This record gives sequence, C-alpha cells and structure tokens, in this order.
Amino acid sequence: MTTVPRLTKTAFRSWLNGLDAFLFDCDGVLWRGDTMIPGATQMLDLLRSLGKRVVFVTNNSTKTRETYVKKLASHGIDARAEDIVTSAWATAQYMKNEGLAGKVYYVGEEGLGKELAAVGYEPFGLEDSKVTELPSPFTVDKSVSAVVVGLDRNVSFYKVSYAATCIRQIPGCRFIGTNPDPTFPVDGAILPAGGSLIKFVECAAGRAPEAIVGKPSQDLLRTILTSFNLDPAKTCMVGDRLSTDIEFGRRGGVNTLLVLSGVTQESEIPHISDPAQIPDYYVDSVDAINQFHRETLDN
Amino acid sequence: MTTVPRLTKTAFRSWLNGLDAFLFDCDGVLWRGDTMIPGATQMLDLLRSLGKRVVFVTNNSTKTRETYVKKLASHGIDARAEDIVTSAWATAQYMKNEGLAGKVYYVGEEGLGKELAAVGYEPFGLEDSKVTELPSPFTVDKSVSAVVVGLDRNVSFYKVSYAATCIRQIPGCRFIGTNPDPTFPVDGAILPAGGSLIKFVECAAGRAPEAIVGKPSQDLLRTILTSFNLDPAKTCMVGDRLSTDIEFGRRGGVNTLLVLSGVTQESEIPHISDPAQIPDYYVDSVDAINQFHRETLDN
Repeated sequence: MTTVPRLTKTAFRSWLNGLDAFLFDCDGVLWRGDTMIPGATQMLDLLRSLGKRVVFVTNNSTKTRETYVKKLASHGIDARAEDIVTSAWATAQYMKNEGLAGKVYYVGEEGLGKELAAVGYEPFGLEDSKVTELPSPFTVDKSVSAVVVGLDRNVSFYKVSYAATCIRQIPGCRFIGTNPDPTFPVDGAILPAGGSLIKFVECAAGRAPEAIVGKPSQDLLRTILTSFNLDPAKTCMVGDRLSTDIEFGRRGGVNTLLVLSGVTQESEIPHISDPAQIPDYYVDSVDAINQFHRETLDN
Repeated sequence: MTTVPRLTKTAFRSWLNGLDAFLFDCDGVLWRGDTMIPGATQMLDLLRSLGKRVVFVTNNSTKTRETYVKKLASHGIDARAEDIVTSAWATAQYMKNEGLAGKVYYVGEEGLGKELAAVGYEPFGLEDSKVTELPSPFTVDKSVSAVVVGLDRNVSFYKVSYAATCIRQIPGCRFIGTNPDPTFPVDGAILPAGGSLIKFVECAAGRAPEAIVGKPSQDLLRTILTSFNLDPAKTCMVGDRLSTDIEFGRRGGVNTLLVLSGVTQESEIPHISDPAQIPDYYVDSVDAINQFHRETLDN
C-alpha cells in the first residue's frame, strides 16, 4: 500500500521556495483535449512572476513546436518554441546527435515529418496512408537510413509493411520510437497512442526500437537539464501519468508533482507498485498552486 | 547445436508405414503465394491412394473453407470443406464451444466475417476500414460480446480504436486472436500477419487475448484429433514454420516433418533452441515423398 502526501497549504511555501524550474506535461495537466484546465494560465503567470523557469515537455509527436506556441498563445500563455520539448522534436534531435542523415521513413503525422525536415532529413511516408493495393513484388527504397514510428491516426497496412521491410532488409537501418505511451484519452474513450503503433511495427519487423525518445527516457531528461542549465534538485516535473511523467522525473533525481486532472485517478495511488513511479506530492490540478499561493501570501 | 535427421530413402518406408494420417500446413508447404510447390498434387494423390487420411490445417484467417476448397480444386486437389481447418473457422468453433453469442467486432478480412456469420454470430467491422474521421465522443455498441483479431490488410486506426474500446469498456467482453504468426511471406518481403495485429490491439486495450486459436494451440490440436478420430502416434504434422507447425505437433505427441519450401532455411536448424520446435525429420519439399516412394517401390 503506497502512500503519497497531498500537497497542502502548510507544505506549499517551502516546497515552492526550493524550486527554480518546472517541467510541465501539457495534455491532462494544462488542458484536456481542447478544454483548458481552470487556473492553468494564471498558474503559469504566477510561477513566472516569481522568477521560476517554465518548460513544456510533451510526448505528443503529432504537432510541431510552432503549433504548440500557437496553441499556448490562444490560451493567453506566452511561450517560445525554445521553451517547448515535444517527442517529435526530441526524436529529430536524437537522430542528429547520433549522426544520422538522409532519407527517413516515418509512420506518424504531419508534425513529425515537419520536425524531421527542419533538421535536414528527407522524411517520407505521410502520403502512403492512401496506398490500398500492395505492390508485388513488395519493394522499399534501399537508401532509407532510419524508420521512425509515433502516433499515426492514418496508419495503414502498407505503411507498417513498408516500415518493417526497411528494418528487415536494409543493412544498418535504424529503428526509433517517438514515445512509449500505449494510449491517449479522448472524449469517451482511451485510444491507441505511439507505444501501440511501435508494438505493431516491432512485431512485424522482428526487432525492438533502439530507442524510444520521449518521457521517461533519461537521455531526454539529461538533454533538457543540460540545455536549460537546470539543477535537478531544484526542478519539478508536473504530470498526470505515472509511467511517463513521474518516472521521468524520479529516475533523474528531479522533484515530482502528480496532478489528478488527466489519466491517473486518486484511487490508483495506493496501488503504485514501481518505486520509480511514486510522486513526491499530488494535487487535484495545477489550480492548487494558485490557491495555496493566495492562502499563504501573508505568511 | 541441434541436429535433425533428413528423411532418407532408407528410413522412408517404415516412417510411412507407421502413419495413418497427415496434417498439412498449406502456404509454404503445398504452395507459395500463388505458385504450387512441384509435386504437391501428386504427393497428396499418392498418400490417399495408400489409404492415408489427409487434413489441411492453416493459420490463414482471411479465407473461408469454401475458398480453400476452390483453391485446392484449381490445382487438381479434391477436398471437402470438412477436410480443411483454417484459423478463421477454428476461431468461430472455439467461440461456439465457449457458449458465446450475439454481436462480434472483428479486425480481420472477409473470410473471417463469413466464418463467424456461418455459425450464427452478427459480425461487424469490415466496413469500418473506410472510416477516416474519429467521432467525438468516441462510442461503441455496448452489446458487443467479443472482439476477434486476425490479419487485416485494411486495418485502420478507427478499427483498432473500436476494438480496444470494446475490450476496455464492455463488462465481460471477450478478446480472441485467430493466429499468432507475426508475419507472412510475399514476393519480395515479409509482411505483418495476425500476430502483429493482435499486438497492436493488445497494447491499446491493455490486455492480452484470452486465447489465440490457430497453431500451435493445443486446444486446436485436441479438437482435430478428436473430430477426425486420429491417433497422435500415427499422425504426422507437415509444415514449414517451427513456432507454429512443428511446435503444434510436438507438444501434442504428433509426428513432425519440416519442409524447407517455406519460411525456414536449412541453416536455421542447428540453432533451434526450443526443444518443442525440433522436428522428427526434414525434407526439401513434399516432393521428396514422391521420390522416396518411387525409389522404394520394389522393396
């Protein structure tokens, strides 16, 4: 039986004073689908007014960082692309650091292709959703250097066949996943996400990806801490998912705050079995930060 | 280092005399894609002329047994639907034996739907390949009693979302896979098969199927031995795949013959690590049976 303390008014001020920076997951923390979590915008203004650094870290692989800038702006949140880490952007960075070049076949959406193109790759695969006939013989472009797989709501048998065949047939072809999330919540259901697509390709290719770039990858956390010059002991990861957000922070010595406004229910907390997924604190939503701040202003 | 004896002229006659029945895998054994394996038709005629019982056992889930009858007939092979076991038909039988009724959502092809309908289910899902927009809220028919997943060359994000949501949201909804094969060979490549589709749905649904009906399921083998009244010690499974055909026979005490005309190469034999996947004998193709028979006629 795992117990996690709820963050309280009493603990709030010293918790906040010990932190210089916040890494925010987005979906389930700042918004849910298209609906903003009440108080999220004010909470970000508050933290910034107190001199805290704010970074957005999302495992979403379908949008570019520029799209996130616009989405945040539409909710009155000022952010630059440099403040935003998406798994699509992080995947392109990972590949650059690995020295990869040339053609990349991707099973994913438009934002993934754009982030790959932005760092100089020749991504293709998006148009293949429309291919309904399998060519015979089945052939692939042998100059593909890597296959990248993320969430793809236009996945087709041809695309997965193409990806798996590149991995099987091209010597040295790399295989990289954007993020491990098996599912993502929508109104009324929980649908397949990047992790499920990766399993599909992995089984067909007979090989697991060399890396899954998004949270909880510690490579990604180290890159963020280094490039933003953050002290892990003074940084807090705020997220709604135990297996990505909380584990991401915990394994890297970063403080963690679980919010219940996304996929995790309060009733799940006593049953957390993996010590790496136990957050330091939890709150109902990020609005608790606004509330505790107001209530402790005079102290 | 595993050694498997090649079946020889010397061993042939006593091997054959000890057998009353043969279970034949089809693709990779009798044909490859649309091309017949040389000698396969004559070999079947030969065995039948010697009074041997011949049963066709395939993990293919995309065709009905009637389609197989026609395919066999087009190659001069006489067979009745009752001589043919496909994973689509076997899945429908499994569900009947489990007492299931009503609506079944399937991720699969036309043959699977027809076999399910033939035993009284109301299968649906085939038309959902054309759905490209995800409805919001995402809802499913709550009267679905089971989800069945097999090879589907028209798989779509919507279909897998629908299947996973039935499994997650409908109390008591069953989840059944037709066959575990991760891939199947086509001209020029190895493409995703039923097993890869099952992994996709499994990851999205957060639950493994209760059963995967095709080879090497021992439930299926027992059903075949019982319904055809076969003695395992006098039955031989002939197949090209170690993890389905050979394991299917070995685990059930049935004799096994590996053919090299399908997915397994001779160079793989020394590296077989699972004792349940070591065949009794191997030959290049079923034509060896014709050859040994001619060469030993006078003995």
